Amino acid sequence: MELWYTEEHTDNVRFSTKVKKHIYSEKSDFQQIDVFETEEFGRLLTIDGLVMVTQKDEFIYHDMITHVAMATNPEIKSVLVIGAGDGGTVRELTRYSTIEKIDMVEIDEVVVKASKQYLPFTASKLDDPRVNLYFEDGIKFVQGKDNMYDLILVDSTDPIGPGEGLFTTEFYTNCYRALTEKGILVNQNESPYYSQNAREMRRAHNKISKIFPIAKAYQYHMPTYPSGHWLFGFASKALDPIKDLDAERWNNLGIKTKYYNTDIHVGAFALPTYVKEMLKNENI
Amino acid sequence: MELWYTEEHTDNVRFSTKVKKHIYSEKSDFQQIDVFETEEFGRLLTIDGLVMVTQKDEFIYHDMITHVAMATNPEIKSVLVIGAGDGGTVRELTRYSTIEKIDMVEIDEVVVKASKQYLPFTASKLDDPRVNLYFEDGIKFVQGKDNMYDLILVDSTDPIGPGEGLFTTEFYTNCYRALTEKGILVNQNESPYYSQNAREMRRAHNKISKIFPIAKAYQYHMPTYPSGHWLFGFASKALDPIKDLDAERWNNLGIKTKYYNTDIHVGAFALPTYVKEMLKNENI
Repeated sequence: MELWYTEEHTDNVRFSTKVKKHIYSEKSDFQQIDVFETEEFGRLLTIDGLVMVTQKDEFIYHDMITHVAMATNPEIKSVLVIGAGDGGTVRELTRYSTIEKIDMVEIDEVVVKASKQYLPFTASKLDDPRVNLYFEDGIKFVQGKDNMYDLILVDSTDPIGPGEGLFTTEFYTNCYRALTEKGILVNQNESPYYSQNAREMRRAHNKISKIFPIAKAYQYHMPTYPSGHWLFGFASKALDPIKDLDAERWNNLGIKTKYYNTDIHVGAFALPTYVKEMLKNENI
Repeated sequence: MELWYTEEHTDNVRFSTKVKKHIYSEKSDFQQIDVFETEEFGRLLTIDGLVMVTQKDEFIYHDMITHVAMATNPEIKSVLVIGAGDGGTVRELTRYSTIEKIDMVEIDEVVVKASKQYLPFTASKLDDPRVNLYFEDGIKFVQGKDNMYDLILVDSTDPIGPGEGLFTTEFYTNCYRALTEKGILVNQNESPYYSQNAREMRRAHNKISKIFPIAKAYQYHMPTYPSGHWLFGFASKALDPIKDLDAERWNNLGIKTKYYNTDIHVGAFALPTYVKEMLKNENI
């Protein structure tokens, strides 16, 4: 008997991978969480039946959510991470000795517990002394925060279930206030290829563009997400991710990465014409 | 009853899409050719059970195989296209009024016939008066050709079946000879993500690097190919795809494209670190 994990990327497209063992399954107060051991991708974490993290390619996502902002502003000291229960984003942040504080707000403690037990490759740095873990709703956490963080990383699921409020104008406005004067917001900004993802991509970017003076998007190749073509949003109060990048300075830090480098930092902001047009479109 | 097309991206990974109708199926002297009408991707052409072209995203592949070289050298007049039976590559080339001759060499006439009938969106320009169609083996066709083409586009399948000889040192050497002094070779250069594709990617790049003074690779997002992360090779006798790009000049041509633009032209050459390391590796 063969066991396969199958995900519906759309009603008409399915992605399946062979499973060695279904090693964890739990329904938390918020969502269904599963961990599989797979042939191709190693450990695989799903939430509500969607791939969140695989051992094979998590480095792509975590490199790109973290290092673009960190290379744009090396003076970042205080970081807020929302979501990111698997720990991979925090792991990348802890590589910067200049960072003094990382507040991580994950609504679902069960995801963190499962990750610590089954995804040690991402969860390895959650006990770093600079990390403060809050098991709270990130939407409420940022309310009323003022001028506190140099960087906010929104490492969220799709805008369904508990992630929905992380795609609202109110939330982005609260992030703006919570940021310091050179503050940067990086958010999981969906994908242009399948229509449902594309709609959310445009909505999120459109809202952020109305709040932040600088609002761009950059792309990365994420093979285990639908279509493999995904974006992060880069929004900031003052810094431009291209003009303010000092490549030599970042390279001198000696941080070894498997996906990110200062060339792809720049290249990732060069979007296909159809994606640029979607992001410009105000009629959403 | 539901009909689905399923492709094995590896032994352990499957991609499936819902089929409205299986509209064409033929075994030619060279390969098995099928056309499906699908819900998500429109018309879909497979060869030996692998997706070659879909109506939804063929523009990505055809933009990127064609316009990078054409924008690097706008003096290209004479082009050789090998493979490309669906006609999409020729369609993009015919948009340049400066091109005087396009020799297209496709080993399998059945692919061209099927494309003319079922994929009119790609095959629409095969009757352009500048196009000479040869139903021959591209490997033999380039033998003995000398200083004849400004550009060779190798639009091939994977290096199995009839495409295998298009990944050999002998073939690349013949291409070098067939090119004029500013000649450019662009080849389908596989993918870094799954190990079988990655091995072929490294082998092809390694061979080409030993023949051409300039040998680079550039990436594109191709959602219906395994992993969605694919490369073309760019090899040339004299021109550098970044330094010799005159973006303003290309933009003044007024050629409207959905994926390609002169920013992504540059950005696509910025490869992830793990891909750069794979391509540098001589031990293949």
